Amino acid sequence: MRATILVRPKAGILDPQGEAVESSLRQLGFPVEEARVGRVIDLDLDAATPDEARGEIERMCERLLANPLIESYEIEVAE
Amino acid sequence: MRATILVRPKAGILDPQGEAVESSLRQLGFPVEEARVGRVIDLDLDAATPDEARGEIERMCERLLANPLIESYEIEVAE
Repeated sequence: MRATILVRPKAGILDPQGEAVESSLRQLGFPVEEARVGRVIDLDLDAATPDEARGEIERMCERLLANPLIESYEIEVAE
Repeated sequence: MRATILVRPKAGILDPQGEAVESSLRQLGFPVEEARVGRVIDLDLDAATPDEARGEIERMCERLLANPLIESYEIEVAE
């Protein structure tokens, strides 16, 4: 089963990569007000149902893929 | 206008970060077959229409946000 996880810095958390992207885009003349940078993780995993996959991925996020203190995550499981 | 860009390593391109995630998840006992890691970029930009925003973002991707030789990108503009 395929799934996509988006891991983003939470609002209010410093995002140096986003700041660098924002300032570089502005220097190139692009009309950017804000940029934030996170990670996209594409997974292929063994799971019998989308619900089971989602449960497994939540555990992966809590244990390894995200830092819940400073990052939020969003899970999309391909049906 | 808000937009989200997903930048991913192209198929066949080495992805050391994905390999590290894959092997760590397996060591933790998760039934993962493959993991690939890319970037998610959230932008707030000035644009009159979603089409104009998409055009600007394509130029940003070609010039700064992605390396078209080894990465593919996907643009979602919030209507």
